[in-house]
Amino acid sequence: MPEQITLYGSYISPFSHMVNIALLESKADFNRFEIDLRNKPDFFVREINPVGKVPVIAYGGPIVPLDRPSPESVKLTESRVLLDFIADLFPDAGLLPKDPVLRAKAHFFIDVVQTKLIPAWRGYFAEGKPSESLLTALEEVQALLPPSGYAIGEWSIADASIVPILARMDVVIELDHPFCGWREGEARSVLDTIHGPRFARLRQFYLHLAERPVFQATFDKDIIKETFKGVFDFRLQLRQSASK
Amino acid sequence: MPEQITLYGSYISPFSHMVNIALLESKADFNRFEIDLRNKPDFFVREINPVGKVPVIAYGGPIVPLDRPSPESVKLTESRVLLDFIADLFPDAGLLPKDPVLRAKAHFFIDVVQTKLIPAWRGYFAEGKPSESLLTALEEVQALLPPSGYAIGEWSIADASIVPILARMDVVIELDHPFCGWREGEARSVLDTIHGPRFARLRQFYLHLAERPVFQATFDKDIIKETFKGVFDFRLQLRQSASK
Repeated sequence: MPEQITLYGSYISPFSHMVNIALLESKADFNRFEIDLRNKPDFFVREINPVGKVPVIAYGGPIVPLDRPSPESVKLTESRVLLDFIADLFPDAGLLPKDPVLRAKAHFFIDVVQTKLIPAWRGYFAEGKPSESLLTALEEVQALLPPSGYAIGEWSIADASIVPILARMDVVIELDHPFCGWREGEARSVLDTIHGPRFARLRQFYLHLAERPVFQATFDKDIIKETFKGVFDFRLQLRQSASK
Repeated sequence: MPEQITLYGSYISPFSHMVNIALLESKADFNRFEIDLRNKPDFFVREINPVGKVPVIAYGGPIVPLDRPSPESVKLTESRVLLDFIADLFPDAGLLPKDPVLRAKAHFFIDVVQTKLIPAWRGYFAEGKPSESLLTALEEVQALLPPSGYAIGEWSIADASIVPILARMDVVIELDHPFCGWREGEARSVLDTIHGPRFARLRQFYLHLAERPVFQATFDKDIIKETFKGVFDFRLQLRQSASK
């Protein structure tokens, strides 16, 4: 029987969202502690993750207040590691199929999300790169999808690894914040492309994922939009004062 | 019971080596087909991996000549995905422990190798980057090691993920080929550092790994050195003719 689980995460972080979804889908009994990324509590950096990144799962150890973690709990990081960890803790919860080939397909899908889609998305919204790499990565993801259903057919952690990214992509592009530095009309045009016929299967896949109750319980578009706006306002200010 | 397995790999490729080690350690019954990376057979790109990269595992399907693969076998790629696939196929072969925390530690170790050590190593020997990032990545790996034993204590796929890199690092630095563009004496100095007191635990770990019969059966230093020399001669020529 699994020991106690605490997820230290941030609502805006897609990586925290992936892990939160996997835990809720597994029907695990767990605690969640929200970390304010712009004002991280001392105990978090001191006792949970010196690198300061979310998500972290603290696993096991004695029962303690969440902001006074025990040194006896194991602290685990990296979203893709945590997705497998949760699947391993709850082998019968349907997070990963039993069949080795299907498991490999789920892992391959997660690998494409982590090594292609996420860098391309970050490059596009945060580093001023052109939309082409993002659209190429989205095509690569779309090409992996079966004609219908989830990433590998049945729902799995492969789906948990992508839905937080796709959901934030829509919000950030709609926001069209000056931080992203897009020329006039570009956000509209990219949004039309990713909602258009070229990405019809990917869009259907996303809408299917977004229907799941666990996703709906963990994603409030307005809160995410407001938080991104705050983060981008802040980063834009930083960038402007750095270039003065 | 697992179906038939064919590994398409290249002797020089550390990624192929990782998978070959895992298959041999699992005592799996499998075929191996050597792909000459500078002269890839047509069937490989056409029927095994359009991207042309090794390693690939072809799994299942009817019995066929290795150079006439069946469309009915599943073709799986990406070394870290394949390491888990082999561990899933042979759950009792000791490639991954049963304990979810230890499994997460193995996955985290593989993640550090793949996302930190390998890019730093490639940056150093192939892209003219200074040695500092490589040494930092090696320190990060070393910090994960327990006081003695393998990456997570008992031998696991975490060890298979790193030994091909550490072994090639020694060979390439000793080779000190003009392709790497190191200044006079630099190779000697880096070699002294990675064999010296700063990396004592990492060195001990590597020597321990290198004692394993499966490693010895799959790594011939002279062949690897000769092959790297050929590849570097070729790449140096390409680079020189590109800059003319």
